[in-house]
Amino acid sequence: MIQIELSKRQQQIIDIVKENGPITGEHIAERLSLARATLRPDLAILTMSGYLDARPRVGYFYTGKTGGQMLSDKIKDITVAHYQSRPVLVSASSSVYEAICTMFLEDCGTLFVVDKSNTLIGVASRKDLLRASLGEGSLETTPVSVVMSRMPNIAMCQKEDAIIEVAQTLMTRQIDGLPIVKKVAVGSGYEVIGRVTKTNLTALLVDLANNDFE
Amino acid sequence: MIQIELSKRQQQIIDIVKENGPITGEHIAERLSLARATLRPDLAILTMSGYLDARPRVGYFYTGKTGGQMLSDKIKDITVAHYQSRPVLVSASSSVYEAICTMFLEDCGTLFVVDKSNTLIGVASRKDLLRASLGEGSLETTPVSVVMSRMPNIAMCQKEDAIIEVAQTLMTRQIDGLPIVKKVAVGSGYEVIGRVTKTNLTALLVDLANNDFE
Repeated sequence: MIQIELSKRQQQIIDIVKENGPITGEHIAERLSLARATLRPDLAILTMSGYLDARPRVGYFYTGKTGGQMLSDKIKDITVAHYQSRPVLVSASSSVYEAICTMFLEDCGTLFVVDKSNTLIGVASRKDLLRASLGEGSLETTPVSVVMSRMPNIAMCQKEDAIIEVAQTLMTRQIDGLPIVKKVAVGSGYEVIGRVTKTNLTALLVDLANNDFE
Repeated sequence: MIQIELSKRQQQIIDIVKENGPITGEHIAERLSLARATLRPDLAILTMSGYLDARPRVGYFYTGKTGGQMLSDKIKDITVAHYQSRPVLVSASSSVYEAICTMFLEDCGTLFVVDKSNTLIGVASRKDLLRASLGEGSLETTPVSVVMSRMPNIAMCQKEDAIIEVAQTLMTRQIDGLPIVKKVAVGSGYEVIGRVTKTNLTALLVDLANNDFE
């Protein structure tokens, strides 16, 4: 992929075509008080880059495409597998107190709650545990399963999903992370094989800025 | 910014220059069994885009720049002011219990603790408050100032800072958000005028993917 900063003249050409298209090369040259031949390289570049399209005997017209398109395509190609963390699991019988301790020990903000066969049954966020700490009950005796979000109301993703879909889900549902799951071999549940959080997305952003993500 | 998909011939030229540069246009044409004039538009585009550089009487050489460069530059131009939220403040005399309630009422994950003159004295994260809930003390009587991170050990940013620097700081310090501050008119402290968190950075990533950030 080639990237070229638009020259002032190329920007002028785009503006002229935007307002007046379809317009011939001769008429563009006229408006700029330049020779048609002078404009040829600029028109070639603007056509090759997709800014302008040209139809024989009609002239140039504006396609409406912008420079950010490529960046956008690049991000959409990145899958969850590229930016994941290992999952931190707690059993449904753990207390809220144990869950909070696990969060600190494992330094994570989202716990996945599983049953005895390691199937996902819920998600406990920092927010869920903090809410529990406001309640009357003892954190040592309240099971985490009482305060967690529960299947099937859990947003999940798979390794092959575009990471940007995860970002969109996190924003829409106002949560911090998703479990990466795969279907269990027997039965109907899901096994948790990873997690992806706003921290992973922040790391991706840093990599994009450092041009370091390929 | 213009983006052009590299043609097969342009890719060939880059490969030749990569291996043999500096190399003259004539020699490139020779290797491709083409006339020098045929290559002129390709060489012009590759030079304009920064893939190749040309020195008179020396020839073309490869600059080592790649397509991701532009994206990277684009991200680095975005300032904190473009992706900020309003700050949520609590007074130093608030209890941990009140702080947690404020977090739920305001739906945020980072509180800024201020003194009577509204000067920043600390930051309380969900993690800080969750840690407090493990302790023996009553949440209603423990002041938030006991569990917060305290000035001057607070990472801060300003409205004009590049948002990517904030992303880097959040990753390095393993925190969720920063206060956006400005110096108070009188005295030596800082006033909090906004906050920027991993949620804002996730929103930026979504906008980048949707080509929606300009």
